[in-house]
Amino acid sequence: VIDTAVTYASGSGYGSTHKWQLTNSGNSFSRLGFRGTEDLGGGLAAGFWLEAGLQSDNGTGFATNLNNQASGTVGSGLITFNRRSTVSFSGPFGELRLGRDYTPTFWNTALYDPFGTGGGIGANHLYFAGLGGLLSATGTRASNSVGYFLPPNLGGFYGQVMVAMGENDNRSLLPGTLISNRHDGNYAGLRVGWLSGPFNITIATGKTRYATGDLRVSNLGASYTFESLWGMRLMGEYYTESLGPVDGRGALVGINLPVGAGEIKASYARYKRDPVGSVPNPTSDKLALGYVYNLSKRTALYGTLAYLRNRNGATQSLAGTITAPNRAARGTEFGMRHNF
Amino acid sequence: VIDTAVTYASGSGYGSTHKWQLTNSGNSFSRLGFRGTEDLGGGLAAGFWLEAGLQSDNGTGFATNLNNQASGTVGSGLITFNRRSTVSFSGPFGELRLGRDYTPTFWNTALYDPFGTGGGIGANHLYFAGLGGLLSATGTRASNSVGYFLPPNLGGFYGQVMVAMGENDNRSLLPGTLISNRHDGNYAGLRVGWLSGPFNITIATGKTRYATGDLRVSNLGASYTFESLWGMRLMGEYYTESLGPVDGRGALVGINLPVGAGEIKASYARYKRDPVGSVPNPTSDKLALGYVYNLSKRTALYGTLAYLRNRNGATQSLAGTITAPNRAARGTEFGMRHNF
Amino acid sequence: VIDTAVTYASGSGYGSTHKWQLTNSGNSFSRLGFRGTEDLGGGLAAGFWLEAGLQSDNGTGFATNLNNQASGTVGSGLITFNRRSTVSFSGPFGELRLGRDYTPTFWNTALYDPFGTGGGIGANHLYFAGLGGLLSATGTRASNSVGYFLPPNLGGFYGQVMVAMGENDNRSLLPGTLISNRHDGNYAGLRVGWLSGPFNITIATGKTRYATGDLRVSNLGASYTFESLWGMRLMGEYYTESLGPVDGRGALVGINLPVGAGEIKASYARYKRDPVGSVPNPTSDKLALGYVYNLSKRTALYGTLAYLRNRNGATQSLAGTITAPNRAARGTEFGMRHNF
Repeated sequence: VIDTAVTYASGSGYGSTHKWQLTNSGNSFSRLGFRGTEDLGGGLAAGFWLEAGLQSDNGTGFATNLNNQASGTVGSGLITFNRRSTVSFSGPFGELRLGRDYTPTFWNTALYDPFGTGGGIGANHLYFAGLGGLLSATGTRASNSVGYFLPPNLGGFYGQVMVAMGENDNRSLLPGTLISNRHDGNYAGLRVGWLSGPFNITIATGKTRYATGDLRVSNLGASYTFESLWGMRLMGEYYTESLGPVDGRGALVGINLPVGAGEIKASYARYKRDPVGSVPNPTSDKLALGYVYNLSKRTALYGTLAYLRNRNGATQSLAGTITAPNRAARGTEFGMRHNF
Repeated sequence: VIDTAVTYASGSGYGSTHKWQLTNSGNSFSRLGFRGTEDLGGGLAAGFWLEAGLQSDNGTGFATNLNNQASGTVGSGLITFNRRSTVSFSGPFGELRLGRDYTPTFWNTALYDPFGTGGGIGANHLYFAGLGGLLSATGTRASNSVGYFLPPNLGGFYGQVMVAMGENDNRSLLPGTLISNRHDGNYAGLRVGWLSGPFNITIATGKTRYATGDLRVSNLGASYTFESLWGMRLMGEYYTESLGPVDGRGALVGINLPVGAGEIKASYARYKRDPVGSVPNPTSDKLALGYVYNLSKRTALYGTLAYLRNRNGATQSLAGTITAPNRAARGTEFGMRHNF
Repeated sequence: VIDTAVTYASGSGYGSTHKWQLTNSGNSFSRLGFRGTEDLGGGLAAGFWLEAGLQSDNGTGFATNLNNQASGTVGSGLITFNRRSTVSFSGPFGELRLGRDYTPTFWNTALYDPFGTGGGIGANHLYFAGLGGLLSATGTRASNSVGYFLPPNLGGFYGQVMVAMGENDNRSLLPGTLISNRHDGNYAGLRVGWLSGPFNITIATGKTRYATGDLRVSNLGASYTFESLWGMRLMGEYYTESLGPVDGRGALVGINLPVGAGEIKASYARYKRDPVGSVPNPTSDKLALGYVYNLSKRTALYGTLAYLRNRNGATQSLAGTITAPNRAARGTEFGMRHNF
């Protein structure tokens, strides 16, 4: 997939910035990968999946993370199989998967938002503003993971569990201290859901251990598709997180409406973080509106408008610009997505 | 394409060096890529092109540049899709292309030289010695570009325009100063030409904005193929550049003569830079002579000799060796190119 | 090939460590590559081979080396075509190969060990503990190499020679000294062998020049396959090395026994290094035992146990853990390998 857009975004207030950019992944994530499956007979199969993220505006890739900790980031701006690198063994019992893969809580954020979690200005606000999304080493994927997925034939019931290793030595210490961080980067997560006709609901939770304070993320997503109303899909997500003493929570509602060869998308989300001391909760709201026109099954043109409002000292912004506390940010983007 | 050669090059004079090397891209550029086109019906098409440069002598790649400025170099020695990373939409109206792509002036340098701009010792002298070629962030390609190409059916007339964004914040300052560099890395360029039977002529110009002084490059290339004289092609390029207060200019003549399954190539170029103050212009001349023997349409053996002379204080050299001011450099290379 | 395993390894004694990890390449090396051959007619052929090593547990790659010296390491943790990057020309005369390729002595270490030189805990002890194996810039591969291989039809006799260039300037000095290192990284090596029915024997030797002391590695490998005893293969390697004033030597015996759809593997190796002064030789022994079960020709599950003992001050360990001098290390791994 290659997806590139022209984006104009602006913050507001003292010290704010605006700029024009060529960005990528406004509609879907630019990526390149290799994958395959081998039928082993008896319902068993082996498979592999190597997938690298791309920045199509300048030809670079994305960092991956070796140990699910901030110290393990490697390959900033370079091509790695950061998106997924797994070998799997599957059969009637389900699927066992080893390597770097998505964490269970990520899926609810990606699948119950009409804009997903791509690089576009409309993408999931909770994912960008929260502590357990883009900012976290395990907010999207975990390395050194062992995952198990239930088989697909359980009457609409589905689920997965994942454990991942931080791979610290048993004598490892937090730099500059005598505090052990031997468990840092160890992850455990769970996701279960139920799909029945037009209705889909999923809950997920995960915990990553850090000597400086564990990260816990939980979310619930649900959607309903009204086939009689032009296939309109309504969806929502509720999200909570805590990183050591800091808590955050948010919610999102979205809609996806097919219109001829295109579709209209809209989402509204609010994210609130607990402050230090007795000051109000920093809160940000984002409204996104988009239209995608499919030139074919593989190629689409799209445009997105986004408006983001900060209150109680929040400073969230769009597309790498800066906005002042309690001020708003605006963005416009127009791009092209091509699957290959 | 993979292209690897054994090269011996030497400078001369006090402090000069010589060395044996295994080099790459003496005949054509080692590269690996992915590309495709989708027919959308009605004469419309979508396409993508991802291409990475390779150093076939040691298995590494090449840096790309994020923002068309010196600060944006990323991936030195590593594999990135530095050569091209585009998504495009084309139709009877021409082609619209987004991403990282070649700048218009680069094409005249590459196409009107029998040795092109590869890594070999025979490659275009103006490209290696000038300020607006290999040394410049936009001398070959620009990231964050939007390009438009005329359709191919205009009676031999062809053309392209490109704008590219440096993506600096509107409040961005030159490091250590209060001077705004908000426009740094913004590029605009144009190329138009006319092809009529054996005759081809093209002019191109481009400007990249920098707070420290804009870079302007212009060139004119022309060639004539004598079908009655064994398909001999004569070609020439005239080139001017200015980077802030410094001006440079040069010219090149070349010949390409098919002989049986092979071809003989020769080029002579001179590049001159305006000095600071009332001293003579540093000037360098390069003569290159080459022979390519095609084992098949895909595989060739080749050899090249090059001689480079410096005057008025110039210190240009070949293949990474060092030569003293006003002294000459010599090089020999023998290699193999294989397209795949 | 993708090969990922769960590994538990522990050192022992004061200051030792143990840890759980997701590792890769316990059975075969995770890798991704591109290769091809073109028939040029008359028994001639051209070929290319680009191969990148992968760390399938986290999606990264491996460093390559530009100049066969410690200073030339590039791309730590990133994807490069570090494993092989060659273009070749072959015919009745043999094969000429240019680029980054395996050194001759590496092959005996890899081929006469049932566990090879992969990343698993059972892999060749001489390769991991010696100065001329994993630790050396030319212990596995050399960049900037020109190699020649004998043709395959010489009555079981085979051989190869390789020279590789360090590409230092003729005036290059060892940093901080006036000592010339112009020859550093220059490599020359040779390998000859004889295969006759069940019997195979090979000797190899190589020398890499360094101003701080040349590296010389030589080894002899032999194997015999008893077709009448279920295809059991016995093998052994004798290995010597010297890096400047320091000498080392070792030996390995191994066995490979096919059992139904699987195979049992075992190896025992000892490596000894000459000490500085009149103290005993640091010596380490490793015993490895493994079982591989082939689910298909392409997919296998495997398990390995390893035990490593240090004497006379040696501190060799397994899988990145730490063990105290003269103490033992233990490891267990279970993984899955899938060829694609």
